[in-house]
Amino acid sequence: MSVSVTSFIPAYKSRIDSHLETVLTFPDSHSSSLFDAIRYSVLNGGKRIRPVLTYAAATAVGEINSATDASAAAVELIHAYSLIHDDLPAMDDDDLRRGMPTCHIAFDEATAILAGDALQTLAFEELLTVAAHSPQLCVQLLSLLCRGAGASGMVVGQALDIAAVNLSPDLQQLEQIHCNKTGAMINASILMGAVSAGADNQQQAALSEYGDAIGLAFQVQDDILDVTGTTEVIGKRQGADEALNKPTYVTLLGLGGAREKAADLHQKALAALRTFDSRADQLRAIADYIVNRNS
Amino acid sequence: MSVSVTSFIPAYKSRIDSHLETVLTFPDSHSSSLFDAIRYSVLNGGKRIRPVLTYAAATAVGEINSATDASAAAVELIHAYSLIHDDLPAMDDDDLRRGMPTCHIAFDEATAILAGDALQTLAFEELLTVAAHSPQLCVQLLSLLCRGAGASGMVVGQALDIAAVNLSPDLQQLEQIHCNKTGAMINASILMGAVSAGADNQQQAALSEYGDAIGLAFQVQDDILDVTGTTEVIGKRQGADEALNKPTYVTLLGLGGAREKAADLHQKALAALRTFDSRADQLRAIADYIVNRNS
Repeated sequence: MSVSVTSFIPAYKSRIDSHLETVLTFPDSHSSSLFDAIRYSVLNGGKRIRPVLTYAAATAVGEINSATDASAAAVELIHAYSLIHDDLPAMDDDDLRRGMPTCHIAFDEATAILAGDALQTLAFEELLTVAAHSPQLCVQLLSLLCRGAGASGMVVGQALDIAAVNLSPDLQQLEQIHCNKTGAMINASILMGAVSAGADNQQQAALSEYGDAIGLAFQVQDDILDVTGTTEVIGKRQGADEALNKPTYVTLLGLGGAREKAADLHQKALAALRTFDSRADQLRAIADYIVNRNS
Repeated sequence: MSVSVTSFIPAYKSRIDSHLETVLTFPDSHSSSLFDAIRYSVLNGGKRIRPVLTYAAATAVGEINSATDASAAAVELIHAYSLIHDDLPAMDDDDLRRGMPTCHIAFDEATAILAGDALQTLAFEELLTVAAHSPQLCVQLLSLLCRGAGASGMVVGQALDIAAVNLSPDLQQLEQIHCNKTGAMINASILMGAVSAGADNQQQAALSEYGDAIGLAFQVQDDILDVTGTTEVIGKRQGADEALNKPTYVTLLGLGGAREKAADLHQKALAALRTFDSRADQLRAIADYIVNRNS
């Protein structure tokens, strides 16, 4: 029996939104625009795909617990920081995000830089709460977050992505960009959720394979939506990547080729879950959702 | 018998430089400008005041060990990230740092933003190496680093500092800015060194008092040097803060008043160390050095 995303995504989204609201409640003394910018950029009705993956991965191997909440919040805080910095004029120069002014437009560039910086630290601080129960688990989760976020993950992807503008990367190079830029944190979101619920090494390896596949699938679908979507639905200027002369799966493979690629990755993701029982049905439903979404 | 800074600072500086060189040796596959920018910004002959404090604090309570090295590297990586972002056009817009082009001038703004981001993650990754010996100690050091670097420390100070340009903060507000902007990480550097060598709570409290005093003294002396130094000696444009209309101890207290303030803080720092034996002589010598330095 298959599970529909509507049966669990709203609950997970509401759970992480409420947890983030608590994490981002600052003392009155912190009433500067820095904290307004932090809250503006995080508590904005984002899709919370990474926390949803964290919760679904925990469910696939065990039970959601406070370490899962901390992991889900940490990956979303890292995601929020990366979006703020990615939108800056010196980077992608985006003025619209989820249909709202980006952080440096709503505030100013200096505040946006600092809000991103503070959010990265907050992500680590949030995971440190796990240490009260288990320093070992805390350290394991922090290692996964570092691997996903840092100089062997997301940030490298951003740098490769910027370097690729106006060059002409081939499919393999594009894949390397996205494995780092999006894939590494998608993978961290899943593995942290799984580890928070006690995943063994074999489960972690399988879920990492699943994560690689849906991470790329997510990007392929993003590239497809950038061409086929409207600004209203996708929440950023349609054709924004094309306007920047950024290489995409659609420019390299054509629209049909990109759709085939997404379908192929979808199958790979499901195959990676073959040893899991029905508790992984949420992860299976997410794989379906990623390639079928229209925003 | 008093200790001269020349008897230990060069050795600590050389120890941290060599450790940072190892930490920042990346695989050949990491041959992008991002990693060049990271190495350029860290391995540049900086004064390494924070790592020196880390080592001296460890010496004051026990023995320097691998957790001390990791702590010293982590605080310097955080310091390097903060300088890169602080120098950006949207922030202080500095083109010269330690007599060399700042990161965004030597590379470009996007690379500078990402290099700073990556350095923050690297700081946390470096501390995670401590977990192999003791997850508990690792978590304790990470907590101190977060408190110093994040939204309750350095980043808040940067935000307050920016907000203060063209306003006219009084002495108390200026102190609040600097306690956060510089003081929080100076304090973290000292406490992490002490904790790495097994400091008890009483020792930590005394060293925190010492750290507050020398952190402020350091800033007062910086303000004095900004007026009295030359570009050649201090490695940045002389009068740079004044040109930005930034409030300083000199503009608020006059040059004589600022010098009195530095002397007062110097005495407070020494008083905080009164229960320590001669193993804290390095910390005493550093307090002397901070208010007597000319660069």
